[in-house]
Amino acid sequence: MSAALPPVIVLVRPQLGENIGKAARAMLNFGLTELRLVTPRDGWPNPDAGPASAGADIVLAEAEVFGSLADAVADCTTIYATTVRKRGVMKPVLTPEAAAREVHASAGRSAYVFGAERSGLETDDVALAHAIVTVPINPEFASLNLAQAVILLAYEWSKGIALASPPEVPLDPPAPHAELEEFIQHLTRDLDASGYFVPPERTEATLRTLRTALTKTGWSHNDIRMMHGIITALGRTPRPR
Amino acid sequence: MSAALPPVIVLVRPQLGENIGKAARAMLNFGLTELRLVTPRDGWPNPDAGPASAGADIVLAEAEVFGSLADAVADCTTIYATTVRKRGVMKPVLTPEAAAREVHASAGRSAYVFGAERSGLETDDVALAHAIVTVPINPEFASLNLAQAVILLAYEWSKGIALASPPEVPLDPPAPHAELEEFIQHLTRDLDASGYFVPPERTEATLRTLRTALTKTGWSHNDIRMMHGIITALGRTPRPR
Repeated sequence: MSAALPPVIVLVRPQLGENIGKAARAMLNFGLTELRLVTPRDGWPNPDAGPASAGADIVLAEAEVFGSLADAVADCTTIYATTVRKRGVMKPVLTPEAAAREVHASAGRSAYVFGAERSGLETDDVALAHAIVTVPINPEFASLNLAQAVILLAYEWSKGIALASPPEVPLDPPAPHAELEEFIQHLTRDLDASGYFVPPERTEATLRTLRTALTKTGWSHNDIRMMHGIITALGRTPRPR
Repeated sequence: MSAALPPVIVLVRPQLGENIGKAARAMLNFGLTELRLVTPRDGWPNPDAGPASAGADIVLAEAEVFGSLADAVADCTTIYATTVRKRGVMKPVLTPEAAAREVHASAGRSAYVFGAERSGLETDDVALAHAIVTVPINPEFASLNLAQAVILLAYEWSKGIALASPPEVPLDPPAPHAELEEFIQHLTRDLDASGYFVPPERTEATLRTLRTALTKTGWSHNDIRMMHGIITALGRTPRPR
């Protein structure tokens, strides 16, 4: 039995209540119970979810709703964005198998993040993630729906709960996402004040690049505390140049 | 690339055309195309199958209908009966993973046989099989539908063929150590100038902690260039506080 926490399933902007129900059913079949919803289109609770869950009511009853993906994964240390499409984002790409191995070896909380039924995850959603999980699929017929993607990832994860090997616990585990987010906000404010974002129309792309670089650091709570201090120190004293 | 033939998918007494369509969709996602139907309840073709297949029409168009399971698997050398329920039948019980390995190693034709939506396979159906395939599932919530069982077996089979490798994304590799070193020197100089190293006798330990945090970032050449710019920007302009 893996001692690692089961992954949280996060559905970003899901459209149909029926699909939320099917995702809950897929989860519970493989022992996953924690569902988080980011701004579901038709609000929550949704009367169409229950019948589609085929009895996975406990998952729906305990589902939590968040206003943003960042909020939904605030307590997670490793975030996996599931997408079948190629992105212009420089992140490691894992199979469901490889991701499951990482989740079982992690000392923190992991999140599997899924996009909306038709459109999938936005670039900004993917930017939050540490890695991308892609289900290898027939390139001539790639038609995996939301619940199917959930079931494949849940199934791969469930294989690891039979494993007897204890997780490798890193000495200083990565900080929860909320701490990194706060640091990114701090840095962005200070950079903005110092005139870093020039020209302004490049700001969004620059921020995304910066976020990617900071997301892959694996910084712990203590690392991030130190980095706050560094930013503050660098801005504090005008230095002779 | 496995040289073995892909397995045939056999649905025994399927009830709803919609579920036949969903099974076809599940198959084609993972490169399986040969579907056989044993006495489908509502006959064949079934107008409900097409819409549910989400474009997997080729699988449906080429589906064959048989009067008995024995006829449907007449050309197959190894027959796998999928069931989640315990049977009083003395057959080897395999996971989808183990069955897929056997299929890839087989010189003959393999069949994955699935029962009707509600009732599953009859004892006489299972008696024809060489082995039973069971998806390990949450004992307190075992609610896998037909298409989900098909997709899990098709997915496991697909790992053995070429499409099972994730797309190679050119990641931004970590920079050579000298670049990181240069960055650490830059940061150290600027922090020193801003009075960060207080008290002085802690400087060495602080530098070691800082170096550890920066060494684990995995930053690329481009990341490090950006970080040089960030340090310079933060120190450039005295900001109102």
